[in-house]
Amino acid sequence: MITVYGYSVSGNCHKLRLLLEQLGREYRWVEIDSSKGESRTPQYLAKNANGRVPILELEDGRVLAESNAILCYLAEGTPYLPADAWQKAQALSWMFFEQYSHEPYVAVARFIRGWTPADSPRRVAELTRCMERGHQALAVMEKHLVGNAWFTGLEYGIADIALFAYTDVAHHGGFDLKRYPAVGDWLARVRATPRFAAMPDPAPENAALLAV
Amino acid sequence: MITVYGYSVSGNCHKLRLLLEQLGREYRWVEIDSSKGESRTPQYLAKNANGRVPILELEDGRVLAESNAILCYLAEGTPYLPADAWQKAQALSWMFFEQYSHEPYVAVARFIRGWTPADSPRRVAELTRCMERGHQALAVMEKHLVGNAWFTGLEYGIADIALFAYTDVAHHGGFDLKRYPAVGDWLARVRATPRFAAMPDPAPENAALLAV
Repeated sequence: MITVYGYSVSGNCHKLRLLLEQLGREYRWVEIDSSKGESRTPQYLAKNANGRVPILELEDGRVLAESNAILCYLAEGTPYLPADAWQKAQALSWMFFEQYSHEPYVAVARFIRGWTPADSPRRVAELTRCMERGHQALAVMEKHLVGNAWFTGLEYGIADIALFAYTDVAHHGGFDLKRYPAVGDWLARVRATPRFAAMPDPAPENAALLAV
Repeated sequence: MITVYGYSVSGNCHKLRLLLEQLGREYRWVEIDSSKGESRTPQYLAKNANGRVPILELEDGRVLAESNAILCYLAEGTPYLPADAWQKAQALSWMFFEQYSHEPYVAVARFIRGWTPADSPRRVAELTRCMERGHQALAVMEKHLVGNAWFTGLEYGIADIALFAYTDVAHHGGFDLKRYPAVGDWLARVRATPRFAAMPDPAPENAALLAV
């Protein structure tokens, strides 16, 4: 059986849980709390030298890193990734957009607000830039969604899963999604897909910080 | 004929030129100096709402954004992307690594040093973090290359092209690659591949800043 090593309240990790649930695949989940350094132990670094979650481990021990590469691997040949070369390229394009223009701001704002101490200097130094760039990314998504139902092509698929993970919890980072009605409608469509699985709530200590 | 809109001295853009030259494909290149705002004009934003270079435009006007998604699209079915699902996933993994853990530090250090004014506050605020994280990425690459010749699988391909682009000019950002002998050997192997095309030198004003 395949194994995912991941932190359940990380959007990058939740992407894999959501796809695996929707594919109806059996998998083992090993919880790695990266916020407590568990992805930097010698044992974990032997699996992924980059020290990040999630990773996918095959039964024979081979390891694949990078959430969006894992999504592509698991979705190949399923309806969650288009077979058409151009549609597939567009899906990939949105997944690179997610990792370069969206996650480093929308996800990092959430991390700073919920996973760093209330007096962290990062709250001053980084949050403003995260908000500015995060809103730019959300505006690009809004523009696409005005004329398109999905990011993966004509149907729901892994580019939607990749972008959904942190957009659905963008309010944790302080983003007001009311400014993006088409994004809001798309989030609702994703939540209504068959076998949808929601991300678990953060631990009480993180929820308390997020509530400030 | 296909058209690339790109800034020739950008590593992200040069990736496409290198692959297209190696594939022997005909293409048109439209120079877009993103450092002078040319990727933020209304005309360009109509092609790519995210305002970034490069993009690929097909003859019928359809547009694909994100350098690494374009590499995948152009390389599909060629020896530059493995057909084997696992090898292909590993190549993709390195390409996501490049955009998330490498480019935002190795490329941004180069940009700050060569494309922002000598008195830019970014030189103080951001360069230290770029150096620290950039060295982490180079160390991950070094570790892989001690046991493997390439990043794309068993042969040279698009994951190598993606990582080569900014690693080959990492010294512009202040990185000393002598600390990474396996990376140095790999750079030399890439330069020796058939129909290799080098990135042009930066303009004199940028070269002057880089020389400081």
